Amino acid sequence: MLLIDCPDRKGLVAGVSGLLYRHGANILHADQHQDHEAGLFFMRVEWALDEFDLDRFQAEFQAMAAGMQMRSRVDLMSERPRVALFVSQYLHCLVDLLHRQQIGELHCSIPLIISNHPDGEELARFYNVEFCHIPISPATKREAEQKQLQLLRDRGVELIALARYMQILSPEFVEQYPLRIINVHHSFLPAFIGARPYQAAFGRGVKLIGATSHYVTAELDQGPIIEQDVVRISHRDQVEELIMKGRDAERAVLSRAVMWHLERRILCYGKKTVIFD
Amino acid sequence: MLLIDCPDRKGLVAGVSGLLYRHGANILHADQHQDHEAGLFFMRVEWALDEFDLDRFQAEFQAMAAGMQMRSRVDLMSERPRVALFVSQYLHCLVDLLHRQQIGELHCSIPLIISNHPDGEELARFYNVEFCHIPISPATKREAEQKQLQLLRDRGVELIALARYMQILSPEFVEQYPLRIINVHHSFLPAFIGARPYQAAFGRGVKLIGATSHYVTAELDQGPIIEQDVVRISHRDQVEELIMKGRDAERAVLSRAVMWHLERRILCYGKKTVIFD
Amino acid sequence: MLLIDCPDRKGLVAGVSGLLYRHGANILHADQHQDHEAGLFFMRVEWALDEFDLDRFQAEFQAMAAGMQMRSRVDLMSERPRVALFVSQYLHCLVDLLHRQQIGELHCSIPLIISNHPDGEELARFYNVEFCHIPISPATKREAEQKQLQLLRDRGVELIALARYMQILSPEFVEQYPLRIINVHHSFLPAFIGARPYQAAFGRGVKLIGATSHYVTAELDQGPIIEQDVVRISHRDQVEELIMKGRDAERAVLSRAVMWHLERRILCYGKKTVIFD
Amino acid sequence: MLLIDCPDRKGLVAGVSGLLYRHGANILHADQHQDHEAGLFFMRVEWALDEFDLDRFQAEFQAMAAGMQMRSRVDLMSERPRVALFVSQYLHCLVDLLHRQQIGELHCSIPLIISNHPDGEELARFYNVEFCHIPISPATKREAEQKQLQLLRDRGVELIALARYMQILSPEFVEQYPLRIINVHHSFLPAFIGARPYQAAFGRGVKLIGATSHYVTAELDQGPIIEQDVVRISHRDQVEELIMKGRDAERAVLSRAVMWHLERRILCYGKKTVIFD
Repeated sequence: MLLIDCPDRKGLVAGVSGLLYRHGANILHADQHQDHEAGLFFMRVEWALDEFDLDRFQAEFQAMAAGMQMRSRVDLMSERPRVALFVSQYLHCLVDLLHRQQIGELHCSIPLIISNHPDGEELARFYNVEFCHIPISPATKREAEQKQLQLLRDRGVELIALARYMQILSPEFVEQYPLRIINVHHSFLPAFIGARPYQAAFGRGVKLIGATSHYVTAELDQGPIIEQDVVRISHRDQVEELIMKGRDAERAVLSRAVMWHLERRILCYGKKTVIFD
Repeated sequence: MLLIDCPDRKGLVAGVSGLLYRHGANILHADQHQDHEAGLFFMRVEWALDEFDLDRFQAEFQAMAAGMQMRSRVDLMSERPRVALFVSQYLHCLVDLLHRQQIGELHCSIPLIISNHPDGEELARFYNVEFCHIPISPATKREAEQKQLQLLRDRGVELIALARYMQILSPEFVEQYPLRIINVHHSFLPAFIGARPYQAAFGRGVKLIGATSHYVTAELDQGPIIEQDVVRISHRDQVEELIMKGRDAERAVLSRAVMWHLERRILCYGKKTVIFD
Repeated sequence: MLLIDCPDRKGLVAGVSGLLYRHGANILHADQHQDHEAGLFFMRVEWALDEFDLDRFQAEFQAMAAGMQMRSRVDLMSERPRVALFVSQYLHCLVDLLHRQQIGELHCSIPLIISNHPDGEELARFYNVEFCHIPISPATKREAEQKQLQLLRDRGVELIALARYMQILSPEFVEQYPLRIINVHHSFLPAFIGARPYQAAFGRGVKLIGATSHYVTAELDQGPIIEQDVVRISHRDQVEELIMKGRDAERAVLSRAVMWHLERRILCYGKKTVIFD
Repeated sequence: MLLIDCPDRKGLVAGVSGLLYRHGANILHADQHQDHEAGLFFMRVEWALDEFDLDRFQAEFQAMAAGMQMRSRVDLMSERPRVALFVSQYLHCLVDLLHRQQIGELHCSIPLIISNHPDGEELARFYNVEFCHIPISPATKREAEQKQLQLLRDRGVELIALARYMQILSPEFVEQYPLRIINVHHSFLPAFIGARPYQAAFGRGVKLIGATSHYVTAELDQGPIIEQDVVRISHRDQVEELIMKGRDAERAVLSRAVMWHLERRILCYGKKTVIFD
């Protein structure tokens, strides 16, 4: 699987597809996108690896990529990235992700769950996932994050999914995992940034509530948006009903974001994402 | 048709329904809502008027309503309110509202279209609606609004629908028609308040765009929300596609808001609306 | 909580609300519906029970109900019905219902899971629910159903949710639980009735797939529909993707149906349902 | 703009993109799709034509296409196909398509409206479109279709949109415009095929109603589906409300289908469509 992200210029598709053809690739999916305003080109190609000499292809491809200023990655779809889940007291996203991983929807392993509360421990045990309870207070936050980072390194974690984790990660933490931390915010961003979005939505009297999954950056709730969804509410719904109905949207947008990231369908540029079909 | 809005207390439904029963009303629809937090009660009752002595009912009802501190309105569904449409250069909402009125979806007459541009004139003529072109510049705004208000009074207008009217009404204008001016804002409020929301949505990289219909109050884009809807977009969509796809959501939320207002399905309290089914 | 279902006639609301008022009921929610074509009246009232003499109310109400030919039920919302879940090999609906029950979304207890496969056993143990594995073959079906019925009676089960249970219940079984068995069918009924609906949808080239929850009646996939939802698909989706995307719709419509049943929001008449807000 | 539809084989993308590159094409959009089950390959490429020698490209491309058994079309996006609208008494789709064409959403001209009723005549005149009233009875149907076909030929019509045209076209008519007649059916196909789908949906008690746009083939309501959409309804909605709410879905799916056809985004194979983004 090949992901390309580079300045747009003529001959990119011809170059890449010609090279794949000469190496006998059997292409399964291919998608590309030009952002004309930004002058950028994006491409994703998936091909079968049986009887394909990946090493030889990579060598030739690197030479071509260098000549064309491509930023690119060649990934094996068969590799299952290691994902850590962060959670606090609400477990619905955790339940959802663990089950989806178990039935094969998410192409990853989940070696680690980290939580500032003990609530998720039994669930972790049920799914045979290591659970680390690391309480956090303002005074211990720095130290707690050091522990988290050590665990992540030790377990070889490549992606972090914040499954309703109610702590704000420090910029120092975030920069260790650039575009590799996915959060779900329980509002339709950029509406209701920050704390207590359901209360804010209730107060404003909106008719739809939403949820947003996005990559975490140093600036709170400002990272590139991956997916959004909404649920219709009515004047009959109090804050509790908003919270309940919102859970379904939270689960949906977080699980899609994790799935797409694992299938290398997402390319970021600036504050935006390209999501390949 | 009876709309009631008052502090919640025991016996309201019993009182109203008992009175209707003693007068022999054949109830067609009834709906009620309690807002427990605010301690408010809302009720909407529709009944058949054949062989119903409305005057006698009204007299008794007023006595009861006074005793129970009800704010209430008794309206005849057969009365068709007079609606004025305000428009600028984008005509899609105008086309939509005029056609819906013509085929009977909107229970109103439309005696007047006011515009700061001449574009809608032919369409108005096609639908036999008076068209008044009143150009507006910062220097002439006050005077133009005076003309508009005079026209509205002369034509007996009871509701104003801003069908993508790109001027901001002055607080003095708005207070003449409290909760009787409906606007469509081309974003999912409270996201992207103010000018150029599609450009802002594009810049932020959202995955859904929206539209919101609301009553106009003195504060820009802050009035009670009546209806909202969203449309899915992708990284392939440029600002022009957002504008095009957004038009469908604009039409939908504005026409529903006008329809519900005309059917007296909307009750406002604070910054919120109750929408009776 | 009072549910009424009877021929429409004048004075029903006045009678019921007057009686509740005289007994000092503090009404929390009330909703009603007339089906004019069928001449039917439906009503649902929820009120607070503190300092309310339910026995005395019931006695008077029964007298009135008899006089007005009402079919009615007075239920205590505090009572948590006992629900049995039936499942086969796909566990996503089971996971969803068990978690929703655990976090309080579903006002019920779940004493029993019955399955013709052993797959759900661990999950049942995790949630402390009795799991009965009753294999079924054409030869043993009658006997297996007898065992199931005995278990349901012994555990005092009042509602059965078929959480992707892949066996067809016999008419004899169904008539033991009239309008108390909820199934999820993995298509947008009445499209794709019967077996393998995703394959059929794929073959027809539809652009949306759906799921439907409904009460089970003797006729396959013909019972009153409770809830439906759809998911957008594209030409890129093969049958496996339809199955995966469809799971989200299945979970959603089944859990809403069970929730609404438990909150006594559903009234059936003919092949249809009234769903009170 | 190039559309390709052929048996899948290695080297297709490399061949086409290499040829475009050698001719100096500046590619604007490109999309491709493999149907692995059917062994088919689909591709759509859009490129800028300034300083592009289309004739020389076409000559070389035809040679390559022949060698690779490609079915292909090279179209100029600047060409605006001539579209005829067929309508009966419901005008909402007609109003919608005419307005969308006028504001530039639909890249076509509309030289002709044909109707078996006179209702659309004024609207046609307003938009300066020729209107032909051709009444149809069982006895005159064959003759009427001959007149229609003559008109279509005379006006050079390339696409026919049936905008709620309530007559069934004969197979002889349909075969004159294979995959060039788009119909909107007022149900979520394959549910409620044939006449009076809203009445059927009402009778079945569904919770969502739908609309489907599809190419017309000899078999009624069986042609390849282009687009579908749904609208939520409730037990409060009678047939009239279904008809009203359904109109919005009808408009949406028909206008999208016509737009996509005009932008050559649709490829048919068997009973299915590929819709390129």
